[in-house]
Amino acid sequence: MNLTHIEHIGIAVKNLDEAIKYYENVLGLKCYAVEEVHEQKVKTAFFKVGQTKIELLESTDPEGPIGKYIEKKGQGIHHIAFHVDDLPNALKEAEEKGIQLINNEPKKGAENLDIAFLHPKSTFGVLTEFCENPKN
Amino acid sequence: MNLTHIEHIGIAVKNLDEAIKYYENVLGLKCYAVEEVHEQKVKTAFFKVGQTKIELLESTDPEGPIGKYIEKKGQGIHHIAFHVDDLPNALKEAEEKGIQLINNEPKKGAENLDIAFLHPKSTFGVLTEFCENPKN
Repeated sequence: MNLTHIEHIGIAVKNLDEAIKYYENVLGLKCYAVEEVHEQKVKTAFFKVGQTKIELLESTDPEGPIGKYIEKKGQGIHHIAFHVDDLPNALKEAEEKGIQLINNEPKKGAENLDIAFLHPKSTFGVLTEFCENPKN
Repeated sequence: MNLTHIEHIGIAVKNLDEAIKYYENVLGLKCYAVEEVHEQKVKTAFFKVGQTKIELLESTDPEGPIGKYIEKKGQGIHHIAFHVDDLPNALKEAEEKGIQLINNEPKKGAENLDIAFLHPKSTFGVLTEFCENPKN
């Protein structure tokens, strides 16, 4: 597979508005989009730094994945997403090499990217996402 | 302050050799350096993906910061490091804006970078590092 760059880093926060203030006013980044992803029960805010996006994630439901994550581990870095050239092929290759997939097939994520997750049990504790931009 | 890109992402692992195999054989990245940082009680392995490095961290001492982190939270993403144009000024600005610094002054990190950490209590749970390459 070919990982071209880190597409984004997902960060779980309790309060999106407060976190946005920190990323804008202290770190000097610009929030260019806020988007709700109903399927994931999150509200997200996006920033760009170099090639990579920071994706802040606030849960809209305590039973959603981010709500449960914060309950268990607290706020913090939730996942890392690599951009790949060919998502279906990358998933096939990972599975053939013994990696446990959370998503066997690409699905739609934020910003209309095709995405899929690998299980952190197979990836040394790192919830890992592969993304492909279908427009490229 | 001016964050130019994500310099690296630090990932705590229990076994560096096993983790290197995953990053090389599954993700297709190339480990270009292994370095021991005695002051931090870690052995590190470096990979590059786009503008950003992946820095795997194995503790050389259970009482070191990575040993304690893994004991408490398990393996996983440990910190995010932003490259800044002017590290002393970035620290000054963060402190003036109420951010708690772990390092008030730059110190030497892996790969001879000037580095300093911000406390995760001030940064919404994300252990945040600023780096500046003195050669630039």
